Amino acid sequence: MEQGSARGQTFYPACPPAVIGYGSAAGGKEGDGPLGPSFDRVSGDDTFGEKSWEAAESRMQQLALDAALGRAGLHTGDLDLLLAGDLLNQCISSSFAARAAAVPYLGLYGACSTMGESLALAALLLGAGYGAYAAAVTSSHFCSAERQYRTPLEYGSQRAPTAQWTATAAGAVVLSARGTGVRVTAVTIGRVADKGIRDAANMGAAMAPAAYDTLRAHFSDTGRGPEWYDLILTGDLGHLGHRIVTDFFARDGLKLTNYTDCGLLLFRRQEQDVHAGASGCGCSAAVLTAWLLPGLERGLWRRVLFCPTGALLSPTSTLQGESIPGICHAVVLEGGD
Amino acid sequence: MEQGSARGQTFYPACPPAVIGYGSAAGGKEGDGPLGPSFDRVSGDDTFGEKSWEAAESRMQQLALDAALGRAGLHTGDLDLLLAGDLLNQCISSSFAARAAAVPYLGLYGACSTMGESLALAALLLGAGYGAYAAAVTSSHFCSAERQYRTPLEYGSQRAPTAQWTATAAGAVVLSARGTGVRVTAVTIGRVADKGIRDAANMGAAMAPAAYDTLRAHFSDTGRGPEWYDLILTGDLGHLGHRIVTDFFARDGLKLTNYTDCGLLLFRRQEQDVHAGASGCGCSAAVLTAWLLPGLERGLWRRVLFCPTGALLSPTSTLQGESIPGICHAVVLEGGD
Repeated sequence: MEQGSARGQTFYPACPPAVIGYGSAAGGKEGDGPLGPSFDRVSGDDTFGEKSWEAAESRMQQLALDAALGRAGLHTGDLDLLLAGDLLNQCISSSFAARAAAVPYLGLYGACSTMGESLALAALLLGAGYGAYAAAVTSSHFCSAERQYRTPLEYGSQRAPTAQWTATAAGAVVLSARGTGVRVTAVTIGRVADKGIRDAANMGAAMAPAAYDTLRAHFSDTGRGPEWYDLILTGDLGHLGHRIVTDFFARDGLKLTNYTDCGLLLFRRQEQDVHAGASGCGCSAAVLTAWLLPGLERGLWRRVLFCPTGALLSPTSTLQGESIPGICHAVVLEGGD
Repeated sequence: MEQGSARGQTFYPACPPAVIGYGSAAGGKEGDGPLGPSFDRVSGDDTFGEKSWEAAESRMQQLALDAALGRAGLHTGDLDLLLAGDLLNQCISSSFAARAAAVPYLGLYGACSTMGESLALAALLLGAGYGAYAAAVTSSHFCSAERQYRTPLEYGSQRAPTAQWTATAAGAVVLSARGTGVRVTAVTIGRVADKGIRDAANMGAAMAPAAYDTLRAHFSDTGRGPEWYDLILTGDLGHLGHRIVTDFFARDGLKLTNYTDCGLLLFRRQEQDVHAGASGCGCSAAVLTAWLLPGLERGLWRRVLFCPTGALLSPTSTLQGESIPGICHAVVLEGGD
């Protein structure tokens, strides 16, 4: 059996792992959105029966993982590796969910790119012979994120037009080293990109250069153009970030006709009053597990480039006057025969 | 060429990567400790010329990585992957250091186990053909950690006897897929362990069960006993945690005669007034890069089990009454011929 390989920023597993399960959990507002009927679990009051928003977020990860394991016909103990991360300080949603899972755990921090990072790493590890089954999980919660990054909800702060709405959602994907169906055939690991944006209420603009950088690297490494894919789906750039990426490629003479963004798909942007769109680790995780993977299974697309984006700021770095570094990891998902 | 393999929680790269560079940076108190003369860079005032403690911590990561690349005879751009993490909210020391490095970046969160997690993942990825060179980096800073986890330094809070002193230090290791010398031949990925400790000033007790769990898994997976190793070195358990692990194994009828802890090696515990010992991501990173790897190169030991430990709490989880989950990843380092 061959080894994996690398070319530039793009890495190829020798044996592309298969997606054998996926699951999602989401809050009430997400349940009212266009993907609502597709979520495995929805909590009307966003608490999932827990006493704090942080515990609710952790609970969402467990529910999403349970749903993914159920589809895969596996139990938690069958997992060789669990890779997870979230937005909370010290990634407590993931750590406490991993405590319940009690399997080998790798904690990640890629901000809202974490669904891409966890899926990429899980695919590379399984595709190299390191175990039979791995799960990639991530989450965000509007209420825990607002009070941590911005202000407590009770303050009723006004939101800027460029602001995005942090998704209350979690997604989990179970990969198998063997198996048929949708497979992860390559991943492009992003570099940190920072064009000097300092407005923490404009994440789309801060992350768009990272998405552009990773997509360019991916096309260059693979020799593929955007048209090789039936769909290119970036992380949570929202309305503004999506337009910036489109503009960047237009300047290169490339018209992206098959390109959308998870931040545009989770909510009805105008009616649900989410300004520039959805964001948060849970945004791309929910869109992946409630829309993209089911669509790939149904044959709506055969080749998809899934590119979650993250803004690597903290409230402290913003207060210290730092600009906002962004990152984007790209994962190639190909439908089964 | 063969693929990697897994047995239980233990993963074996098909081609064990070699350590071709390591570097360290540390603060003044660490410079005054027993490892002081071995650090590549020491800053007397702990600022490394930066305006904030957070920026100083990020600078330490860059200095440690520069030193490691220097020993390896490489430039930053030669790295196929950079894996890093730290204790700060949203891992900003690592993100901002990665921004300067501008190579493919995977952010990790394993609290003080991060040197183990980053080294383990770098070894598994390189050992499977995913690139030629990777760096594993981590850091902590006493001043940024104190104000984030406990109280601002200016309050002059009294410390409990079980408290440990967060190291102001960073360590970086550069691995090569080819090469001779010290190699990473296996890693054991830990599960989250939580025995209900709620005292955030007693991390040693909170993390010791995770160290015991990972060590037991490692011995069981590999069929090796502790005596197979010339040295077993846990993360930052300090005086109390080290004693708990020793006691746990004694109950199993195993006397660990070759076992010490990074938290006991960084400072002169009594004279430097650090209570139960050193802690922080930078503790095991500094001991690895200023003591363990040079010693392995000099032939002081031939087989070492390096097991950094992490406490996966946050100030929020503590205030919400949660207990402290711990984790420990073990990395097998074997000296060259």
